[in-house]
Amino acid sequence: MKEPEKVTPEETVGGPTPASAYRRPNGSAPQIAGDPLCLPPGVDSSTFKTFTLRLADIVGQENITIIDKADELRQDSYLNPSKVHDMFYILEKEYFVASCVVAPRNVPDVQAIMRLCNEFIIPAWPFSIGRNVGYGGSAPRVPGSIGIDMGRNMNKVLEVNVDGAYALVEPGVTFFDLHDYLVKNNLRDHLWCDVPDLGGGSVLGNTVERGVGYTPYGDHWMMHCGMEIVLPDGSLIRTGMGALPDPDADPSLPPHEQSWNKCAHLFNYGFGPYNDGIFSQGSLGIVTKLGIWLMTNPGGYQSYLITIPRDEDLHQAVEIIRPLRVGMILQNVPTLRHVLLDAAVMGDRKTYTSSTKPLTDPEIDAIAEKLNLGRWNFYGALYGPPPVRDVMWQVVKASFGKIKGAKFYFPEEMPDNLVLQTRHDTLQGIPSVTELRWVDWLPNGAHLFFSPIAKVSGDDAVAQYELTRRRSEEFGFDFIGTFVVGMREMHHIVCIVFDRKDPDSRRRAHKLISILVDDAAKQGWGEYRTHLALMDQIASTYSFNDNAMSKLNQKIKDALDPKGILAPGKNGVWPSSYDKEAWKVPFRG
Amino acid sequence: MKEPEKVTPEETVGGPTPASAYRRPNGSAPQIAGDPLCLPPGVDSSTFKTFTLRLADIVGQENITIIDKADELRQDSYLNPSKVHDMFYILEKEYFVASCVVAPRNVPDVQAIMRLCNEFIIPAWPFSIGRNVGYGGSAPRVPGSIGIDMGRNMNKVLEVNVDGAYALVEPGVTFFDLHDYLVKNNLRDHLWCDVPDLGGGSVLGNTVERGVGYTPYGDHWMMHCGMEIVLPDGSLIRTGMGALPDPDADPSLPPHEQSWNKCAHLFNYGFGPYNDGIFSQGSLGIVTKLGIWLMTNPGGYQSYLITIPRDEDLHQAVEIIRPLRVGMILQNVPTLRHVLLDAAVMGDRKTYTSSTKPLTDPEIDAIAEKLNLGRWNFYGALYGPPPVRDVMWQVVKASFGKIKGAKFYFPEEMPDNLVLQTRHDTLQGIPSVTELRWVDWLPNGAHLFFSPIAKVSGDDAVAQYELTRRRSEEFGFDFIGTFVVGMREMHHIVCIVFDRKDPDSRRRAHKLISILVDDAAKQGWGEYRTHLALMDQIASTYSFNDNAMSKLNQKIKDALDPKGILAPGKNGVWPSSYDKEAWKVPFRG
Repeated sequence: MKEPEKVTPEETVGGPTPASAYRRPNGSAPQIAGDPLCLPPGVDSSTFKTFTLRLADIVGQENITIIDKADELRQDSYLNPSKVHDMFYILEKEYFVASCVVAPRNVPDVQAIMRLCNEFIIPAWPFSIGRNVGYGGSAPRVPGSIGIDMGRNMNKVLEVNVDGAYALVEPGVTFFDLHDYLVKNNLRDHLWCDVPDLGGGSVLGNTVERGVGYTPYGDHWMMHCGMEIVLPDGSLIRTGMGALPDPDADPSLPPHEQSWNKCAHLFNYGFGPYNDGIFSQGSLGIVTKLGIWLMTNPGGYQSYLITIPRDEDLHQAVEIIRPLRVGMILQNVPTLRHVLLDAAVMGDRKTYTSSTKPLTDPEIDAIAEKLNLGRWNFYGALYGPPPVRDVMWQVVKASFGKIKGAKFYFPEEMPDNLVLQTRHDTLQGIPSVTELRWVDWLPNGAHLFFSPIAKVSGDDAVAQYELTRRRSEEFGFDFIGTFVVGMREMHHIVCIVFDRKDPDSRRRAHKLISILVDDAAKQGWGEYRTHLALMDQIASTYSFNDNAMSKLNQKIKDALDPKGILAPGKNGVWPSSYDKEAWKVPFRG
Repeated sequence: MKEPEKVTPEETVGGPTPASAYRRPNGSAPQIAGDPLCLPPGVDSSTFKTFTLRLADIVGQENITIIDKADELRQDSYLNPSKVHDMFYILEKEYFVASCVVAPRNVPDVQAIMRLCNEFIIPAWPFSIGRNVGYGGSAPRVPGSIGIDMGRNMNKVLEVNVDGAYALVEPGVTFFDLHDYLVKNNLRDHLWCDVPDLGGGSVLGNTVERGVGYTPYGDHWMMHCGMEIVLPDGSLIRTGMGALPDPDADPSLPPHEQSWNKCAHLFNYGFGPYNDGIFSQGSLGIVTKLGIWLMTNPGGYQSYLITIPRDEDLHQAVEIIRPLRVGMILQNVPTLRHVLLDAAVMGDRKTYTSSTKPLTDPEIDAIAEKLNLGRWNFYGALYGPPPVRDVMWQVVKASFGKIKGAKFYFPEEMPDNLVLQTRHDTLQGIPSVTELRWVDWLPNGAHLFFSPIAKVSGDDAVAQYELTRRRSEEFGFDFIGTFVVGMREMHHIVCIVFDRKDPDSRRRAHKLISILVDDAAKQGWGEYRTHLALMDQIASTYSFNDNAMSKLNQKIKDALDPKGILAPGKNGVWPSSYDKEAWKVPFRG
């Protein structure tokens, strides 16, 4: 195969096209203003100008924003806290930045943008809402990419089907939106929408990034069903049964407006290769519509908190959790949270200490005592009518009761426990943003997630906790974390809270996560998702048999996106047309 | 892109290489005997001979069998009832036939076979056990392909992990094997393996083909976790967390023998694009190892039968089923079976009638009465300790009790009902082959499955039943079918039983299924899986937006398998190097 030309930060692809050479069909004068903070790679400002004018012809001028250099220097506008960057930047805030942001109004706009990006060989980075906090927000991996704001205009709940218990949503629909839709349409008594900790994100975006929630439907990717996707060449597919036309579809309508096959959101796999997964955490297409299964009201609900007193009880607690979870006595995705996560929701660091050093065990014990919490706190729920809940609760109580000093609480017994009150909502699919508060643990608080997968075993939990706490403290941070218990594994979410206005704090956070990735890989632990700055590093740990999986990913990438215009570098997958080394993230560690 | 040369049945690719030109490294004389019934496309017998000698160098002579023409004509040996063809052929039995069958001993053999097939441009068709009955058995789509018998030598249960509740299996492990392993190791009290109707098939093969079973773990694809796959270029990947090396792996071992990452069978998705799905019902790789989740003993079990008296009760029954299933009151994959399916398990057609015409309603009523069954019969089960089962059963009884004349039975109340006794096993993961008996409904009984997906709605169920019964009778067949109830849809499995020794019966069966595919597509119904002869037709019904999904499939196929050597035509996906039209299945309708 012929080696394609590489795109590097320095190189110019194609000669400059003066903006003056471009006239709109109607002869009107080009009017996209602004000098971008960062140009797309290898594109001069004149070509960029032409490109944005062409974009304006697609979506209308009101749907393009240049990330204006002067503006940014002046007022921090777009960079904080809006949609087109990483609001929790760990590099300089200008590093992961788009050249402009375009908000398509509909599917044909997305298709036209893909075709235009191919024509100009300009990379594009789609985002739904931009709330991918802790993982890079809406910022692109390749500086100067155009941001495609999928959610601004495409934000409708297209359908909630009660019989089939599913919703069909556009990228801009947040968990709040979907929940509100259920409430407003008096459907909440029938249907619950699983929600993650924060309700402000996109249902579609979270699902495609394989985010999780906490009801029995917590594995969002498992619960998706039927997608509509624009491929990098601008063509449009519907997956699964959606690939089978609906006989009632109006042939005079464009494909994206045609009614869906009646089973498109009822059966995932369709016929032949099941392609959905390659579009998750991927760069092979832009998802424009997503079917997501809703949980039916289980006929009863009871949330609870179990406080687990000692730090060293972690081992026993996880050993108790494993058989209960795999046996579905624990019916949902419960969490085992370190006390400082709860403490951080209920107050900032200064509320608890004047020390600038990482909190010591005695200090953490004192906080736990003050908050009437354990060193670890298990938030779960029971689903079903009373006799079912009673059976489950008896087993749960008897099992956790083996931990000396463990205490059991229902929310009504702890009206002032903000976390329990919030989890009571979250675990029944009621969204909130309360838990964002822990980011304020430090002044100018921002965070990075370090998210390794762990076996549900006491040994693994303790080893991950020991490692991540030790390293956190080594870099001057408190350990704040939670084990999110899936069917047979835990997403161990370590929240690295740093001061985004303090370059040293950012540097330490960056260094910490980078070291943790390597530490973890040495133990055989891999992350399920990550921040832009860590994508290459983490992808490189999934290196079995001489990086066979990375090679496969690149082969498929090249086949579907030969010019490498869609999200190059996302999750460590680079098209051949990019020199991965040249795009290495600067590291100030 | 340059249009590649097409492989057609007539064309010769590459010049002939005389077998005499080939000498083994050790100088021994070539010894693969036999004149194949069918050569690979475009390959002359001399080249084929050389190819088989090279194959013998890979796997040993004892692991190659030429599908010998003389032998076949003489004794019907390999074609009936063995592994390398469709034992339930609907075309002439010599149509879907391999040129030879090779049984790799291990993963490097599979890799070497892939490389050799690329060198000779000879298509290969892998199968696990060859029990894909009703869908083509072990036969290849392209006549003359080499069959790769993955199961003959690679048939070990590599691991059963009790804590993680999963198994790791090779292609040759049957459901019987896995169940026996659990029994022999005293693990059956802890772990159940979901099984389909027939236990003789491959766990891996069934899962990759997206077959279903009947416990709460009935969606085998959903319950798989972590695969090892040889790609068409011979490279080896492990998916999900399996792509992350195990730190304890012995680097002196070849990759396929290295220990797996400890989370490989606990967490499906890994990091980055989730590729597993493209290898299901696909032709992009050969799965050599599969992780599959096992169900933990639910702490109690009760199977049941609900007889539903009248044919027209189907509508009401399905309306009752929908909310119960989506609400998980029906905890598993239950089935709503037409009485003739049960009747066929308990006796052949002659037991019930001397008529040669399709059975009339009064005749079917008489059979139902004789067997003490309803016209429809619902087989379900309750899982969990008594209080949980009691709650579920109360709801189930109250709901189905609304059907006038519905009766409820536990297996102990119907000791002579072979179907209920068998379902009692199947629904708790105990394999059997009892249900194969319905194939003997006709003399020389064989069958084809017509398997459309249906909404769980009375209207859809009745419409599919009405259509498939009417068409079946039009072609002289009795309607024999079952609705297999998934989370939000039903796999409607219509069993077309025909006499394989009667060319007219075969012709009518072929015509019937072909017409049903078109009839169904007009209603928006699509099949989830099919026989070799129908793959192109069904793939062509998944045609949304000018066959966008087919085009995507072909693009990925071409990228990973540029010479089109792996299972060309499988599920309607043809590499560009094949002229699809030239490979059209002859239709004698």
